[in-house]
Amino acid sequence: MNDMSKLSPDQMVSTARFETTRWVDDLNAALAAKDALAASSLFATTSFWRDLIAFTWNLKTVENPEGIADMLTATLPHLDAVHFTIAQEPTEADGIITAWLSLETGHGRGEAVVRLREGKAWTFLTTLVELKGHEEHSGPTRIMGAEHGVVRGRKSWPERKADEAATLGITEQPYVLIIGGGQGGIALGARMRQLGVSHIVIDSHDRPGDQWRGRYKSLCLHDPVWYDHLPYLDFPKNWPVFAPKDKIGDWLEMYTKVMEVNYWSKTLACKAAFDEEAGHWSVTVIRDGKEITLHPTQLVLATGMSGKPNIPRIPGAETFLGEQHHSSKHPGPDAYAGKKVVVIGANNSAHDICAALWEAGADVTMVQRSSTHILRSDTMTEEVLGDLYSERALANGVTTRMADLTFASIPYKVMPEFHIPLYERIQRKDAAFYDALRKAGFMLDFGADGSGLFLKYLRRGSGYYIDVGASDLVIDGSIKLKSGVEIDCITQTGVRFADGSELPADLIVYATGYGSMNGWAADLISQDVADKVGKVWGLGSDTPKDPGPWEGEERNMWKPTQQQNLWFHGGNLHQSRHYSLYLALQLKARMEGIPTPVYGLQQVHHLS
Amino acid sequence: MNDMSKLSPDQMVSTARFETTRWVDDLNAALAAKDALAASSLFATTSFWRDLIAFTWNLKTVENPEGIADMLTATLPHLDAVHFTIAQEPTEADGIITAWLSLETGHGRGEAVVRLREGKAWTFLTTLVELKGHEEHSGPTRIMGAEHGVVRGRKSWPERKADEAATLGITEQPYVLIIGGGQGGIALGARMRQLGVSHIVIDSHDRPGDQWRGRYKSLCLHDPVWYDHLPYLDFPKNWPVFAPKDKIGDWLEMYTKVMEVNYWSKTLACKAAFDEEAGHWSVTVIRDGKEITLHPTQLVLATGMSGKPNIPRIPGAETFLGEQHHSSKHPGPDAYAGKKVVVIGANNSAHDICAALWEAGADVTMVQRSSTHILRSDTMTEEVLGDLYSERALANGVTTRMADLTFASIPYKVMPEFHIPLYERIQRKDAAFYDALRKAGFMLDFGADGSGLFLKYLRRGSGYYIDVGASDLVIDGSIKLKSGVEIDCITQTGVRFADGSELPADLIVYATGYGSMNGWAADLISQDVADKVGKVWGLGSDTPKDPGPWEGEERNMWKPTQQQNLWFHGGNLHQSRHYSLYLALQLKARMEGIPTPVYGLQQVHHLS
Repeated sequence: MNDMSKLSPDQMVSTARFETTRWVDDLNAALAAKDALAASSLFATTSFWRDLIAFTWNLKTVENPEGIADMLTATLPHLDAVHFTIAQEPTEADGIITAWLSLETGHGRGEAVVRLREGKAWTFLTTLVELKGHEEHSGPTRIMGAEHGVVRGRKSWPERKADEAATLGITEQPYVLIIGGGQGGIALGARMRQLGVSHIVIDSHDRPGDQWRGRYKSLCLHDPVWYDHLPYLDFPKNWPVFAPKDKIGDWLEMYTKVMEVNYWSKTLACKAAFDEEAGHWSVTVIRDGKEITLHPTQLVLATGMSGKPNIPRIPGAETFLGEQHHSSKHPGPDAYAGKKVVVIGANNSAHDICAALWEAGADVTMVQRSSTHILRSDTMTEEVLGDLYSERALANGVTTRMADLTFASIPYKVMPEFHIPLYERIQRKDAAFYDALRKAGFMLDFGADGSGLFLKYLRRGSGYYIDVGASDLVIDGSIKLKSGVEIDCITQTGVRFADGSELPADLIVYATGYGSMNGWAADLISQDVADKVGKVWGLGSDTPKDPGPWEGEERNMWKPTQQQNLWFHGGNLHQSRHYSLYLALQLKARMEGIPTPVYGLQQVHHLS
Repeated sequence: MNDMSKLSPDQMVSTARFETTRWVDDLNAALAAKDALAASSLFATTSFWRDLIAFTWNLKTVENPEGIADMLTATLPHLDAVHFTIAQEPTEADGIITAWLSLETGHGRGEAVVRLREGKAWTFLTTLVELKGHEEHSGPTRIMGAEHGVVRGRKSWPERKADEAATLGITEQPYVLIIGGGQGGIALGARMRQLGVSHIVIDSHDRPGDQWRGRYKSLCLHDPVWYDHLPYLDFPKNWPVFAPKDKIGDWLEMYTKVMEVNYWSKTLACKAAFDEEAGHWSVTVIRDGKEITLHPTQLVLATGMSGKPNIPRIPGAETFLGEQHHSSKHPGPDAYAGKKVVVIGANNSAHDICAALWEAGADVTMVQRSSTHILRSDTMTEEVLGDLYSERALANGVTTRMADLTFASIPYKVMPEFHIPLYERIQRKDAAFYDALRKAGFMLDFGADGSGLFLKYLRRGSGYYIDVGASDLVIDGSIKLKSGVEIDCITQTGVRFADGSELPADLIVYATGYGSMNGWAADLISQDVADKVGKVWGLGSDTPKDPGPWEGEERNMWKPTQQQNLWFHGGNLHQSRHYSLYLALQLKARMEGIPTPVYGLQQVHHLS
């Protein structure tokens, strides 16, 4: 490298490019020869191939040469003309070469990221981005809109829209029914429209965005704007870093409209059953008071990765004379000034609700039952997301798509390796803050293995608070803390603890989280189907609330499940944006009759 | 250049950069010395300095060293610390060096474009982009949104919005009242919000976007998407090239909401008067049936550059037994299948309406009273706009802002030099099309001097059709044409011509254009004020409908008028985007009490 750096850029072929070229050439040759063993020999003893539907028609991470050989042995017979090319100048750091590749197969095009160590692949991400013959119309290929020329009887845009509204779900059946019109359902709906897949998104609220508007008053996004873009339409440059909930609600509402998502508001899904013979679902919905039965081929549950509200059974709760509700039903603090409130739970919602109640003049106590991971929002924005999702990243040429792929290119099993040192640094940086929290009696953790926020989110979707100010109120005692003592029972007037102490309460808020998403399937379809697909979310990390065995990917999310034609979609805005692409392509391929042989359909190890 | 091209890029200082550096250094020195003569000597004998509020607090083009010296003599005493720097590598073509400069003054920052010929400036554009101390919060300086930390009594975003809605115009007066909530009013409203200028946009329609929705069914934008972006938020990449009117309506509605424009729908402006002593306007409006008097300091008429509908007085019109209406009131073709329709006029609306009527099965005749400029839409998109506003331009690195500045950098007086050869080429390219039109009896022109569409638009805002298909119907006789014969009168049953022929009609559509925008001022304020500000729009080109003397800029648009605190805003989407910036900064500066001495306030030569 040192000698070569004296050459002009044109004359220099970097070691990184040389090594990458050799590896890519070898891989292309092995794939062309359909030689799974030869291909797998290009991977290190410890290695990971994460495929997002390009090879496996699944979201699948296989490990080590054996796992890779198994995957290729199964998939190569179906794959033609697989070819990788180097898309950007490879880079080298700390002995690891990172290279961005383009991927073409017989049926589509995609992107890939490989990390090479001593000439062999350590991590490999492959993604499908478009299907040949079904490319999205965008940029240079955008539709004309006005059809130039004049044709008798032609319908105008609003007439075609009105026709679609009058027939879809009534005389014409949608190919896809998406239940849940939050960010996930809307993002997927936009992709369905763009890919020409007939679809309906149903949601019980009055308007798109009400999922956010209806939450507690002080709620703002805890993730910064750069992480939150929806497909096709970025937030504008004058958008705040952390948008207030109602502003996000307005954005989702307008996005639904301008993306021409077929969105049925005020529509409740009552009952669904899959007709194996007919190959479609029967879904009974009540739209604006009227019962309609839909027959979509594919059914997507986008009802929130959080699943159904979880309220613990506490003895005596039924005798409580005050008000009690789950955090998802909390109306905000205004009615509780001067009242005594006990909030059970110590994660995100608990903190936000306690802070808003304190702001409004309530006497509020947080009951912490187990330790919580706390990460200061500024620290997260700067230290955790800053390299990928920030103005700094944009200035460095890291687009949202590149950031998404970079993030996706780190296999879940390896992610702790990247995150543990990061959180060690964060603990040093924010040591005074964490010490003060501990001094206040707050039970802290940084995840079972010290890997922090994202891993906790990916493993269990809970157990943390991104601090936007409430922790200071816990530290200074404004929010009272009851920690480390078991709840004994609820009395007529409050909460009694195992140590005999009692907290009087006018209101009890259960900020006690949510169940698995297959709870929705149990309610809507049947317990049998819910059990057949099993637990949704989590990696099988064998850490609290995420039992093993290791799955390699999020359980049941954005990929085929054990129930034919049933899909789960959701997650935060980042996931709704990124993974909706792969889910959309899986649905589109099926609609078009493109063969989609699934490799490694997940086995069910847990029912919920 | 030839010798230098052998050097590496680092070692080479191009002639273009060398010449530009010398010119910029000389200009900076002259401006620092407040030496108007020295500065003007850097300009060629025939030369143009177009200033968009950076020097003149006006939109002003001055000509030749004498004009430039006059402008600088008047403005330099008020200007401090003016300094230009080269912003991009200058380029040279055909003996002209083009250089992009950054501009800083004591009170703001801006951009500039200079064209040098033989060491002297031929054209010079200077623009102000932001006021120091009042920079917009965008990208790296965007607001946080969530205020981290918890503050008792703090109001949430929807509470602050509700407070503003409850007080603005009632107990608090807006600084700016914008009458007319089409694209112009909305774009300016978005800039007002972003600059922190209290404002209300009023509009008589039910919803933002209804200005488009209410027009004839087949209407699509005639300008392509790349030309049409609004401030802050580009159309997404999946947006059609030529959007249908209702889709644009939906976009404007959502844009109004997400940009948090204070928009009063269903509100009619009845009467306005300027109180010189108080320094503000009294404007009576009826909002949703209720009369309210507003007292804005600044009043902006954004009621459409087209002004009020113009219906010619034709003898006998009052005796006609069928239906007759102006094109702006035309409901679309659906009710007229099988009916006989006469459309008087041969410009954009006439063509679109005739085509839609023919599509719907009406028997339709277009009455052409004078020659029309026709430009095929594909040709316009490719030949006229393609270098600046297209996927090709974007691929070449030409951003929308660069395109706007490039377009603005060509002084109106020079523009025909650029456009006449272009339209000569277009006439050759589309010769068969134009020949067929002439053969059908259609009277064609390419503008008084052959300079084509844009000059016609800038001079008179009318006299053309961007062909999206109707011309073929004229050519093949589907749309019947009556051309070159004077209308004698309207009878009870149709239209009679000077040659004695008569056209029976069930419907007469007057596609006869619009008056000057100061007609709105006459209705709303007084004829005196309308006469005081004079004609709006046009350059003084001494061509049909644009009488001399030469003005150098659009009359009264986006700049101070003879009526204190009265402004006109409008134009197509491109102009609404670009010029709303300069109008917004003029309003913001006045609100902040920043001195804004206006150089060269325009004189009034025509009343309408």
